[in-house]
Amino acid sequence: MFKKITIIGCGLIGSSLLRDIKHKKIADAITVCDQSQETINFLKKSDLCDEAGSDIKKMIKDASLVIISVPLSAFKEVLLQIKDLVNSETIITDTGSVKKELKKIIYNLNSSNINWISSHPIAGTEKSGVQNGKIDLFKNRWCLISPDEKSKNEDIKLISDFWTKLGSKVKTVSVEDHDKILSLTSHLPHAIAYSIVSATTNNPEMSKEVIQYSAGGLRDFTRIAASDPLMWKDIFLDNSENLLKDLEQFSKELEQLKLLIKEKQASKLLNLFNATKKVREQIVEAGQDTDKPGFGRK
Amino acid sequence: MFKKITIIGCGLIGSSLLRDIKHKKIADAITVCDQSQETINFLKKSDLCDEAGSDIKKMIKDASLVIISVPLSAFKEVLLQIKDLVNSETIITDTGSVKKELKKIIYNLNSSNINWISSHPIAGTEKSGVQNGKIDLFKNRWCLISPDEKSKNEDIKLISDFWTKLGSKVKTVSVEDHDKILSLTSHLPHAIAYSIVSATTNNPEMSKEVIQYSAGGLRDFTRIAASDPLMWKDIFLDNSENLLKDLEQFSKELEQLKLLIKEKQASKLLNLFNATKKVREQIVEAGQDTDKPGFGRK
Repeated sequence: MFKKITIIGCGLIGSSLLRDIKHKKIADAITVCDQSQETINFLKKSDLCDEAGSDIKKMIKDASLVIISVPLSAFKEVLLQIKDLVNSETIITDTGSVKKELKKIIYNLNSSNINWISSHPIAGTEKSGVQNGKIDLFKNRWCLISPDEKSKNEDIKLISDFWTKLGSKVKTVSVEDHDKILSLTSHLPHAIAYSIVSATTNNPEMSKEVIQYSAGGLRDFTRIAASDPLMWKDIFLDNSENLLKDLEQFSKELEQLKLLIKEKQASKLLNLFNATKKVREQIVEAGQDTDKPGFGRK
Repeated sequence: MFKKITIIGCGLIGSSLLRDIKHKKIADAITVCDQSQETINFLKKSDLCDEAGSDIKKMIKDASLVIISVPLSAFKEVLLQIKDLVNSETIITDTGSVKKELKKIIYNLNSSNINWISSHPIAGTEKSGVQNGKIDLFKNRWCLISPDEKSKNEDIKLISDFWTKLGSKVKTVSVEDHDKILSLTSHLPHAIAYSIVSATTNNPEMSKEVIQYSAGGLRDFTRIAASDPLMWKDIFLDNSENLLKDLEQFSKELEQLKLLIKEKQASKLLNLFNATKKVREQIVEAGQDTDKPGFGRK
């Protein structure tokens, strides 16, 4: 499908892509560029790629598809390094969780070499690093792609087909809508998870008990509050505008709930809980979560 | 272990107890009292108990242990019905999620017949009803017991041994501490889950997208926001004092996070996320959750 794919940044997402590309024979050659010697050593011992190293010029040579999977805050540096190493025939995609800042960086570069079609596979786990990547991570998951105004239709089709081959369901959205959607479905939940884990475990009277008895509900939140700190710091800063707006809306909803509890409004509480129960049913119906009790935990 | 156990209220918890008691041969006889004809029919078709019906007097006759697993708001009525059908030799326990109001009800009854040792197995799922009960639901889970001032040591031991036989780890706590612990570890997370699901799905612009792309984090919260509405309405009202206090603390933490995002305080955000990541590790180490990515979801 591609002559040569280069993955820049080989963490959970990059290395899962690598495994899938290798397994499904999507490229004639695959190279990986990463700044971590540990990651390069891991890759050299594996047979996952043809070449791995930190020399971006060497790795990217003649690539037909470049996938940038670095933290958002490293994106600009990567682009500055590669802008004269690629040409407009090379498709560049990324897997970043916020797109607005990336778009701005590319716009400011104003380089005719850069042929960018953004991707965001809505997949991943709380684990990070090359060793945690896995085959089929993107299977049955959504991938949102955001072409640039000057993207060629044939390139958009290539990127769309690429994700489809990995088993993803592809949808095209604007960069602006992407960031709004992800703020609600991902960034807001993470912000709240960080806050609740922090609020409960900072309780000096009960910090031991909070860990011990977390199976009553709290443990569900701690999973996403254990996600890669560096990645999430970048996401919160890049999508701060949408996120702060959604946090305001959440705070309003929470004040409303507090009022219902204070005023002992039994039937209004029941209505609220019945409505949220239905949302879970819709999410399970949409194939976005398991129906098994407790997520099917063992 | 017990001559006769009567379970009053046979939902998820009551019917899981029933299955365990039967399977582990903990009683010579087991009866179930429930107000739902559907539940009684289900039990009559099963071989899980010796007798099932809605006649409390008949079911409870000569019981040595009575387990009350009704919603908190039905507790008073059940106690009024049984107070003259039991004597001080009968041990009464319950599986309620808040204890303060139950203690008040029992205190106000002022009956020498009532020999109450409270239990709270920290187990359960978002599924409710007799058909969702399962064997080993309490295995490796904590059970908090709260004896009364006048409880006999031998009775406390009997209750403790009962839960131990089901595989639970038993800890004795005061009613007051119980309610504080559960507010932090269970009631606060549920309150927040209801609010976030409500805030995101009430967004008129994006309600379809919120469901569709919920795998980015939101779906984790929808599980506990799908818990039994009636049960949770009762919990919020009975534990309102602790819960409102904890919600205030959470709101403060959230305001602090908003400020860090607004001011783009990258290193403070990193510190916060590193701290919450450690909490997850402690919860996994304490055996309170699985280490598998994504809860091991399929």
